[in-house]
Amino acid sequence: MKVAILGLGAVGRGVLEVLATQKTGLVVTAVADSKSAVIESEGIDIKAILAQKKDSGICGDLTLSAADIVTTADYDILVEVTPTDVETGEPALSYIKEALARGKHVVTSNKGPIALHYPELSQIASTKGVVIGFEATVCGAIPIIQTLRHGLAGNDVRRVFGVLNGTCNYILTRMADEKLTYAQALLEARELGYAEADPTYDIKGIDAAIKLVILANAVWNLNVSLNDVDCAGIDQVTTEAIALAEEEDYTIRLIAELIPATGQMRVAPRLLPRNHTLIVQHTLNAVAVETDLAGDITLIGKGAGSLETASAILSDLIFIRDFYDRST
Amino acid sequence: MKVAILGLGAVGRGVLEVLATQKTGLVVTAVADSKSAVIESEGIDIKAILAQKKDSGICGDLTLSAADIVTTADYDILVEVTPTDVETGEPALSYIKEALARGKHVVTSNKGPIALHYPELSQIASTKGVVIGFEATVCGAIPIIQTLRHGLAGNDVRRVFGVLNGTCNYILTRMADEKLTYAQALLEARELGYAEADPTYDIKGIDAAIKLVILANAVWNLNVSLNDVDCAGIDQVTTEAIALAEEEDYTIRLIAELIPATGQMRVAPRLLPRNHTLIVQHTLNAVAVETDLAGDITLIGKGAGSLETASAILSDLIFIRDFYDRST
Repeated sequence: MKVAILGLGAVGRGVLEVLATQKTGLVVTAVADSKSAVIESEGIDIKAILAQKKDSGICGDLTLSAADIVTTADYDILVEVTPTDVETGEPALSYIKEALARGKHVVTSNKGPIALHYPELSQIASTKGVVIGFEATVCGAIPIIQTLRHGLAGNDVRRVFGVLNGTCNYILTRMADEKLTYAQALLEARELGYAEADPTYDIKGIDAAIKLVILANAVWNLNVSLNDVDCAGIDQVTTEAIALAEEEDYTIRLIAELIPATGQMRVAPRLLPRNHTLIVQHTLNAVAVETDLAGDITLIGKGAGSLETASAILSDLIFIRDFYDRST
Repeated sequence: MKVAILGLGAVGRGVLEVLATQKTGLVVTAVADSKSAVIESEGIDIKAILAQKKDSGICGDLTLSAADIVTTADYDILVEVTPTDVETGEPALSYIKEALARGKHVVTSNKGPIALHYPELSQIASTKGVVIGFEATVCGAIPIIQTLRHGLAGNDVRRVFGVLNGTCNYILTRMADEKLTYAQALLEARELGYAEADPTYDIKGIDAAIKLVILANAVWNLNVSLNDVDCAGIDQVTTEAIALAEEEDYTIRLIAELIPATGQMRVAPRLLPRNHTLIVQHTLNAVAVETDLAGDITLIGKGAGSLETASAILSDLIFIRDFYDRST
């Protein structure tokens, strides 16, 4: 199958690197960064493009763009890994809609379009007989979407409950372990690249809430939005509150919770026993899925990072290759 | 799709109960217990059969058998959940071979045939264009096969490392927490139904070793057998050894380890830091998958139990319905 990739940040480059070295049978026919694009219907020379990008910062022809690829290039799957805008979803949203309308599968790490418009995108995909892969939008490398859709198929999921934001988990871990203040821990997280210059989305719980909305809409076909999430962040958590909790063998974590049957969604700092399975360290994510038959299944892993996100993109690509290739 | 079920122990009954209550689109056309069978090509009355089984201990016609179902009934998927014989694989092995040879998909919880003959069974399935689902053979409700095959597709798995036997984990947990001797903890495990009357397979590490062999052969197409596993059990672990470990904030767990690149497999009691993600309590299982892109992904859940095994069977059934139904 032929793959077009929009976005050559760390994730896009990571996907390209794996496709250059592994025998996946996937051919990359187009690549775009924010300023240029390359289209080669027989397959681009991935290593040459990566080298050029590294040397010049530009991957291809300045007269071509991501939009040109979407509308005119020859591909079966669009990999959309441009930066996220969680308010409008653009420009990714338009790229994804156009690709789906052309009957192309889409794989994306872009939270904006999926959180804002999944029901509509899913409808277009269904009409055209294609699928949208978005494993990379929730919990990075943890295959939570695959697990909910396939691994635990047949189960009634009572609750999804977990640590979905690594930045907050890092800050709370450091406040607990080193008695840092919130401000000190946030500064450290920034210096280490775990928090953005503007950390609002992470620390206010919005990033975790977005992931709940994606799960609710995409796995359970609900039609909810960010406003439906009861959302509190970690910026009011004090070192003293954590110390008090730890005296009783508890600690504080930012927990995201979704109850599919009612659509109830909540993100808030909560007390958990210190030996609880969901108490993970530093930037790890941990999700417990509570079910009727399988009991509780917990998944732990890295929730962010370019290679980790590339891993999720690849698993979606390979699933589409294995189960949705109409040419075989 | 039409489903035939061999075996009406707790797992088989659990699968039937879910198929009776959920709208899966799967029709049960045949059921066998060890003494009798029912065949109804338009679909059996599941609730009536379960009631009859409960009342009389027998599900159907004494002149019919599991073998009759396999060779003559009308079904698309054979669910094989008869008791396991890990030395010969029989009679399950013959049932599975015959069903595959007839071009039927097979879903099984039966470790024997999969551990002993996966390469051969896989070959028959491939020739006939059908698949074998065996999620239930490794770690009960934890979707480890799905995760390795699909969720982490595109990753190079460096190591699988974890607690694959709940009985041993229960015994070691109780020895650590309550200072029980090995004999006392084993007795307790038996009384609670966590250990068999003859616990040899569990406590000698053979059950965990069998699961490694299944993963090695089925996920990585190796061709290994139980003799290739370097295997030690927990029967030589003393309360004193655990106490010594705990003094240094370590504890002892029976760890199964597989390195796909070399085929190296080992089961042995090992020291782990007490706050290690794989230190789970009682009968839980925990598996860490170490990869190049996704980093370490850990899955924790119930590794045994009839509903948990039924959950794994169902996920295989639904995957086959969704991706291998040739009638759609």
